[in-house]
Formats: sequence, C-alpha cells, structure tokens
Amino acid sequence: MSIPKAAAAFPRSEYIRRLAATKARMAEVGVDVLLVTSSSNIAYLTGYVPDTSYVPQWLVVNAAQEEPDLCLRPIDEPAGVHSTFLARERVSSYSEDCIGQAGVSAYDHMYRQFESVLGKGRIGVELQSLSYPAATELRERIGADRTVDCSLLVDWVRLVKSDLEIEVMRKAAHVSDMTIQRAGELIGEGARELDVAAEMVGVQIRGLPEHGSVSLAMPLINSTPRTGTPHFHWVDTVYAAGTQINIEIGGTLHRYAAGLMRTFHVGPPPERLRRIHAAEVEGMEQALAAARPGATCADVAGAFHAAINRHGFEKASRCGYAIGINWLETTASLNMFDHTVLQPNMTFHLMLGNWIDEDFGYTISETFRITDTGSESFARTPRDLFIR
Amino acid sequence: MSIPKAAAAFPRSEYIRRLAATKARMAEVGVDVLLVTSSSNIAYLTGYVPDTSYVPQWLVVNAAQEEPDLCLRPIDEPAGVHSTFLARERVSSYSEDCIGQAGVSAYDHMYRQFESVLGKGRIGVELQSLSYPAATELRERIGADRTVDCSLLVDWVRLVKSDLEIEVMRKAAHVSDMTIQRAGELIGEGARELDVAAEMVGVQIRGLPEHGSVSLAMPLINSTPRTGTPHFHWVDTVYAAGTQINIEIGGTLHRYAAGLMRTFHVGPPPERLRRIHAAEVEGMEQALAAARPGATCADVAGAFHAAINRHGFEKASRCGYAIGINWLETTASLNMFDHTVLQPNMTFHLMLGNWIDEDFGYTISETFRITDTGSESFARTPRDLFIR
Repeated sequence: MSIPKAAAAFPRSEYIRRLAATKARMAEVGVDVLLVTSSSNIAYLTGYVPDTSYVPQWLVVNAAQEEPDLCLRPIDEPAGVHSTFLARERVSSYSEDCIGQAGVSAYDHMYRQFESVLGKGRIGVELQSLSYPAATELRERIGADRTVDCSLLVDWVRLVKSDLEIEVMRKAAHVSDMTIQRAGELIGEGARELDVAAEMVGVQIRGLPEHGSVSLAMPLINSTPRTGTPHFHWVDTVYAAGTQINIEIGGTLHRYAAGLMRTFHVGPPPERLRRIHAAEVEGMEQALAAARPGATCADVAGAFHAAINRHGFEKASRCGYAIGINWLETTASLNMFDHTVLQPNMTFHLMLGNWIDEDFGYTISETFRITDTGSESFARTPRDLFIR
Repeated sequence: MSIPKAAAAFPRSEYIRRLAATKARMAEVGVDVLLVTSSSNIAYLTGYVPDTSYVPQWLVVNAAQEEPDLCLRPIDEPAGVHSTFLARERVSSYSEDCIGQAGVSAYDHMYRQFESVLGKGRIGVELQSLSYPAATELRERIGADRTVDCSLLVDWVRLVKSDLEIEVMRKAAHVSDMTIQRAGELIGEGARELDVAAEMVGVQIRGLPEHGSVSLAMPLINSTPRTGTPHFHWVDTVYAAGTQINIEIGGTLHRYAAGLMRTFHVGPPPERLRRIHAAEVEGMEQALAAARPGATCADVAGAFHAAINRHGFEKASRCGYAIGINWLETTASLNMFDHTVLQPNMTFHLMLGNWIDEDFGYTISETFRITDTGSESFARTPRDLFIR
C-alpha cells in the first residue's frame, strides 16, 4: 500500500517559488543541475521533515524540470513521499546494501541512477555539507572540471523569507515565549535543573494548540558556575541562592526556529550582573533601531557595540546571524565585517550572549525580521533580568 | 576567575586507558600525532560534554605527551576546562574573529598554534568528520604526503567497552525502560502524540535520581500511517482505534546511549502485525543466542535472518550496529557482510526494525553486550507487542 501525503506545511506554490529562486541563481553561476546535500536545504525546497543526513541522500534540482528528485535511503523513502510536496515518482532510493558495508557506495548507486542528468555539463554540488570522503568520491565521479561548488547557493535564497515563512516564525516565537514563561515558573531555590529542562522541552514539543512541533531545538541552560560558556544543554544540579541561569531556547514549527535568550538569577543579583544587563538591553534597543532596509549587518553590530562600549563593556563574539529552518543560517552574520545590505523579511537572531569571564557571562536575544521601514521582534517576553 | 572542574563522568585512569589504546593504534599506522575532529571521539577521550562540532575544534593526541590538547572556539573554552579531565593548560582556543567571517580560517589559527607539533612527520587526521572545505584546507596546510586519514581509528578503540562504560550503559538502559513504561501509560485512544513525546522526553532528561542526563537522544515515534518508515520524531496527530505506534528511544548517561524499540497498538492488532511480532521475537532470541565471543557479526545477523525467514519474512536493512557515546558507532555492523569477531564488552544495538511496506513496519530492539560466554541485554522491558 502507498503512504498518503501529510498535511503540507506550505502550499505547493511556496516550494515552486523557492525552487524558481534557486534555479535563477543556478543560471547565474552557469549550472543546469544542482545536487543539494544539506538537510536544511532539502527541507526548505521540499518540506522533507526527518533529519536523515547521517546517511547519504540528495535532492537533484534540474533547471529543465519543475519538481526536483529526492533520493534517500530505502527506509526513508516513505517519509519522502509523506512529508514533501513532490509527486510520487520524484522520490526514489538507493540500495539498502550501501549502509554499513565497506566498499559499497551509496553515492555510486545514486550517481548511476541519475547518470543521464549528471553525466554531462557543469554540475553544482553542495560540497560543504558532505564529508571529505563523500565529496572526494563525488568530485571524482562527476569530474573535477565539471563540478562547481555551490555550497551556499540555496542558503542565500533562504535569507529573505516569504510572508508565509514569517507567519510560521512568529508562531514559533510564541512557543519561545511560552517556554521562557514556564522556566520562570519553575526556577527558584531548590529547583533541579533537569526538571526545569524537562518542563521547558515539554512546552517546546507540545507547541501551540493548533500547530504542534515536528522537531526540537534543544535548550541551552548554563547555570552557575557555567555562565561563562554557552553550550551546555543541562546538568544535574540544584539551584540555590546566588545561582544565575542563562537560557537559550527556541520554539519550532515546521522545523523553523525562533531563538530567544534570557537570564535568570535566584535571589538578589550582584552588581556586575545588573550593570551588564542594563548595558545589553540598551545595546539591543540600539541594534534593533539600526536594523532597517538599506542598512548593513555591520551597521546593526556597530550600533550594539557603541552602546555597550559607553557602559564600559565589550563583546568578542558576533551579535547574531540569519535564522530560519533548523536555526542557524550560515550566510549573513551580524558582525562588523559583514556588509550584507538588509532587505525586508530577512530574519536574524540578534544573539547578545556575552561570555566575559571564564566563570561569568550574560545572555539576552531577540529573533527579528526586517520590515519595510525598520525591524520587528517576534517574541513578547519582557527584556528583563528575571529575579526568582 | 577560573571555572571549577565538574564532577567527572569517569576517573582519570579511564581516560588514560582510552588514550593509551589510541596511541597504540597510532603506532601501528605510523603516526605520532592525531588530530581528532569527531565530536563523539573528543567526548570519549576527554569527557567534553557540549556538542559544539558545528564550529571548528580539534583534539591533538600526541604520542609524546600523556594528556592531549583540546582547542575550541573561545566561548567554549570554559566548557572544555569544566567538563574534561584535562589540566587547565591543555585547553586553549582560537580567535573569535574566525566565526562568521569569510576569509578568516579557524583551521589556520589552530594550525599555527600547534605548528611545532604539526609541522613535521606524518599527521593522522580524522578526515571523515570534517567538511570537504575544511579537510581540503587542512590537507593542503599539512601537506598531502604527510596527512594520514585516521578517520575510524578512535572509533575502533571505542568498540570494546570497559566495565565502567558498561555500568554507565546499563544505567542508561534503565532510563530507556522507564521511558517505554511512561509511553505505555499514555498511549491510548484520544492521546495526542505530542503529549506522549513530551512526557517521554521528560523521563529521558530527568534520568535517574542519582544520575541525570546531560544530553538527549531524541525519540523516534512513527505512528500510523508512518509505520513503514523510521525517522519521524513526532507529529501532531491523535491516536485512534487501529493506530500502531513504533517507538525508538534511548536513555543517555554521560552521553552514552542505550537504544530500545517497541511497538504499540491501540485496540486489537491486525493479523500481519501479530505474525511479524512473533517472527521478530524469535529472530531476536536466536540472534542473542548466537552472540558470544568468537562468533562474528555475520553469525548474529544470520541467526536472525534464518529465524524470520522460517516465518516467511525478510528484512532488508541491517540488524544493528555498535553503540556507545552519542548512539551510533560506525564500526562493526550486524549484517551478513561483517566478519568482525565478537569480544567481551563489545556493545550493540540489535535493531530489528523492519519496514516492510510503504505504509507498514514493525520495531523491536535490544542493546546488549558480549559477555565472557554469551550476551547480556541491558533493558528489562518485556519483548511484547503492547496493546492499549
């Protein structure tokens, strides 16, 4: 029996729009065929939900064909049919024998399956999303002279969102608000971090009554003495008076994420925490005020740095990055060196986490979009230092 | 101020044992220095907890030095100090300017930092864990003639666990049991899958009263009509009479996972589900009986296939794989082509998920170790088809 289609995250016209924009860029770099290997880009162009990128898979975007071809591991093929907008015959798979067996290559299988398309002309490949052995094998198979590295081509298309995508990210941000609120209900003297994490993740998974999640952006919770570093998810600790808790979370919808960071403190906060909070909130306001069409990423970062410098602070890491499907987009970066010109519906995570000392840091952030005249933050959580 | 050390997952002697085994293999392949780039292998050799492998980082294992050198992004350096057994001076970082800035390379920064070690002799590199551009840059920098691909060298060391690791995996399996039990309490007519998922994840995060988790192996829940495919986490659906739910989860402790799969059905199960359940349980018993020191991976897979073939079934995907830190180990594979000889304390996920038709599959599994005389499954969950 065949598997039915799931309710689509977006209408077909939205995927065709994304594909058309991709094909326009392909024409600019002179390739008729693009092998998309990034899990996020495959999701973007088709709606494919599972993250199965730990095994070989690709999407073949062919300028001569409206819908692309998705080729997966056999056990993932029904998921490709179920969760994408693609016609049944556009989803295929290689032999299951290619998994876990030395000397049998899925890339070889896939290449032979698509040889009539891949065997001639210049072929774009997302080399950056491939492991070194996989990329080397593919380049040799196609021929180095015919292989064009198109690693960030689709990523740049993703940078400017449609109104439909913005609506999804706004809803994801509502889940972010709910998650921080739940954290605030639980954090306090005697709370176990694992209970706080479990309850926050519960909110993230359940999502909105009308739209649940299909993925999870795992929370980052860095509590004393880990506030000087950002990437612990949670540890087995119990909060006491004087514990500071830095939180980075994001609700997700259809795999789109809306990042949000806030800082909590159990009991009266120390002076240096109050001071950096005040500086960073002003920096955030200045950055959001500078964010508008025609300004650059560097302008936004510059506004932030100028504000916190006036307060006697510096921040070594960048001020944020483009955000969308699966959180991080590796294109525009909110730092002093990025001169990307902002356009309406570009979305960024204004990530003002500041890890100042080995044992002290502070976090606050907003996910925002560029509007026709300025910027719009998606979340509604107050920009407070939360005392519990 | 400096950050204190966290309570260690394992005693220093355990990490030194792992490093010694790694150095012995390095000697066999003729390299004095190994650049470890896999997040799982860095965790294995040092205890490093966060998964920060989306940015450049490496561990330099030097045969001439007892402890390796961990080099991270600056904001992750305190996490390296806090969560590893390494002396403070063995943890360092590159410039934060390397993040999100075109043309500034973290690999260049790290190479220069370690040039006295990397500038001479044959250098082992885990090329497989690097993206194509990163591996290409490193190979050019070191020199192709001095670069030795050591991609799975540490992975093969990981295959045989110490008794300390076995104890950790046994505890992780206890969390797996608790997670399936919680699912069983919730699954039934009218249950929302997102609530089931949220509660299961809550159990996984909270872990054991004496040992919480630091990571999460995200559950895979594939309910009707998705039982013919394995890799959806959860979707927004409500269970009804006739819904089948295939579950793959794993408790984790210190990032070690113990995989466990079971199948649920709301209301009386159809005949084909009863039949494949009976066949697979017998296949599982035969496979576990065949698993003992001196037998091979192929022997275990062969015992399984013979049993289900007698019941009129086949399974196209492999029967499992080595498991440990971060779940999948890409070494020994339980299929008919793998002649790895089993040794005591090798651990496998005997993964008997069988996706037979586009809209029908069945899942059951056990995580087990090879004992001195046979095999030991870690979980205690009955091997039942659970009717709710």
